[in-house]
Amino acid sequence: MLQSLQEDLLHDIKSKDLRVIIISAEGPVFCSGHDLKELSSEEDAKHHSKVFELCAEVMTLIQKLPVPVIAKVNGLATAAGCQLVASCDIAVASEKSQFATPGVNIGLFCSTPGVALGRSLPRKVALEMLFTGEPLSAQEALMHGLVSKVVPEDKLEEETMKISHKICKSSKSVLALGKATFYRQMTQDLDTAYKITAQVMVDNLTLRDGQEGIEAFIQKRKPVWSHSLDQKK
Amino acid sequence: MLQSLQEDLLHDIKSKDLRVIIISAEGPVFCSGHDLKELSSEEDAKHHSKVFELCAEVMTLIQKLPVPVIAKVNGLATAAGCQLVASCDIAVASEKSQFATPGVNIGLFCSTPGVALGRSLPRKVALEMLFTGEPLSAQEALMHGLVSKVVPEDKLEEETMKISHKICKSSKSVLALGKATFYRQMTQDLDTAYKITAQVMVDNLTLRDGQEGIEAFIQKRKPVWSHSLDQKK
Amino acid sequence: MLQSLQEDLLHDIKSKDLRVIIISAEGPVFCSGHDLKELSSEEDAKHHSKVFELCAEVMTLIQKLPVPVIAKVNGLATAAGCQLVASCDIAVASEKSQFATPGVNIGLFCSTPGVALGRSLPRKVALEMLFTGEPLSAQEALMHGLVSKVVPEDKLEEETMKISHKICKSSKSVLALGKATFYRQMTQDLDTAYKITAQVMVDNLTLRDGQEGIEAFIQKRKPVWSHSLDQKK
Repeated sequence: MLQSLQEDLLHDIKSKDLRVIIISAEGPVFCSGHDLKELSSEEDAKHHSKVFELCAEVMTLIQKLPVPVIAKVNGLATAAGCQLVASCDIAVASEKSQFATPGVNIGLFCSTPGVALGRSLPRKVALEMLFTGEPLSAQEALMHGLVSKVVPEDKLEEETMKISHKICKSSKSVLALGKATFYRQMTQDLDTAYKITAQVMVDNLTLRDGQEGIEAFIQKRKPVWSHSLDQKK
Repeated sequence: MLQSLQEDLLHDIKSKDLRVIIISAEGPVFCSGHDLKELSSEEDAKHHSKVFELCAEVMTLIQKLPVPVIAKVNGLATAAGCQLVASCDIAVASEKSQFATPGVNIGLFCSTPGVALGRSLPRKVALEMLFTGEPLSAQEALMHGLVSKVVPEDKLEEETMKISHKICKSSKSVLALGKATFYRQMTQDLDTAYKITAQVMVDNLTLRDGQEGIEAFIQKRKPVWSHSLDQKK
Repeated sequence: MLQSLQEDLLHDIKSKDLRVIIISAEGPVFCSGHDLKELSSEEDAKHHSKVFELCAEVMTLIQKLPVPVIAKVNGLATAAGCQLVASCDIAVASEKSQFATPGVNIGLFCSTPGVALGRSLPRKVALEMLFTGEPLSAQEALMHGLVSKVVPEDKLEEETMKISHKICKSSKSVLALGKATFYRQMTQDLDTAYKITAQVMVDNLTLRDGQEGIEAFIQKRKPVWSHSLDQKK
């Protein structure tokens, strides 16, 4: 499953036509994390290691992709499934969705999900989830920043599409530059972050799509994007 | 008081029977921080230093303990008392509870409480509290992540016990490993955090309680924990 | 505009009478960020560089000022205008206010605003704003920590003044020490943060206003501040 997700995430990643990735699921569960049979004593530590390394690889891959990745959650997201939601750029959830890290119930603390949760939620909320395994409601997930939008179940498709269409109206190359820069500067102190981003703003302006956008705005017309990393003529 | 709190926190800490610590108070005030007489000019800078160092020691001790520490707040938590709430792993508050850092009123900025607040609250909320000394309501504290749950006063005991009982259903050794790992990885960059936690997951699986939990889940029975750090047989 | 804002922020900064700075605007827009004509191809990269460097300088200056800086927002704050709100110490907004980073619409990703947003908002909320350009309502901004208070439009002046008057009741030197310390410790690990602030608490107590405040409290009278960095007699 992790391999298949990784392949899907990377599929056609350089195509100009790929502009946004939506991760969704069929049925009442968004994702319930690892297959416990893979983690049982029938497999050795070397195999367990491989599973968790691949998992971390897929989770961190999401931030490295040049397009926004949206989690569209309609149901229960637990353990590594909750980590997957926390690892996406944007997360839209239906009101019935729930989020939990119940590893403690089976003697396997959700330590890897804790990496993503600890960076998406206030510490106390993350620790209560990790220590008790009890679920967060969709509204609580919104209040605490695990998801960025909550809508009634019958509006989930519409809202996800609204966000996606909005993203598709922008230049792919500008979004790619912006996403990579955002994650890069977030690991830096304030002064370094501003040094990096001030230079990126200047570089962004040298892109054909950077100048096209500003010219179109001044001329009060719709921009026509090249979606390429070409410099302006 | 700080010494007594430190001793209480460390009391029987290695006992298998100690599974969770709840910090609560009698009366309308949860904790109002330092005794100002200890900070007056009757004592010298050396004594003041000792007080603040001990305070920081107690606050950071909480994260190092092998069991979850819950603040059960029913009333006013101010200054180092507010810092104490912010320093716990989990905080449950009654609706009437309030949280403030009013040091500015007495010419002593809550700089040490600011360490815990700045890591528990959005920066603007923390600064408004620190600059004005005005209290946050329980609901505001919940919205901003200073506490993880707010309930009516007559449900405070019940809710705290519910969380505690949930915690007591898990393996002590697994929780201890999980708590230590959570705080450890939170100080690292994303890649290092995943390296650390992927290895911890593998180690967790070698614990007797790690394999017992998974086997019990697959066999659809209740797990029987050893609560020890024994490796699986 | 940036130069004028910088001059205004620094105006009379050492005066004892300057105790708080409020940044507000006339009309329906709080601030809409850069003048796009300055960023068009009519200007060269060197000029663009200068603009973004000055912008970062002004944004980071706010944290360095010895008095609290309040954004009083009544309307739309976009792009670098949204960054300005995020960069203030405190932000009070009217209910009709909105916050957006719509750079993607004109092919110029809000990378510099992203520095301030990424440090004020949960990551998913910041990224949805940056990727879609869609506005956050005042209530959403409050829930997610971008502003610290939201009030009806006709109470905005009153609320901002209430906060300001509260600030003016404190010692300028104590607030200055507290503000500088808060930002300084926030970039450190927990142990270092406590080492720094424990020492600052001791230093704070040696200030004339530090001892005056505590004495006044013990004597149950109003403190009389010197607002100076004088040591106690």
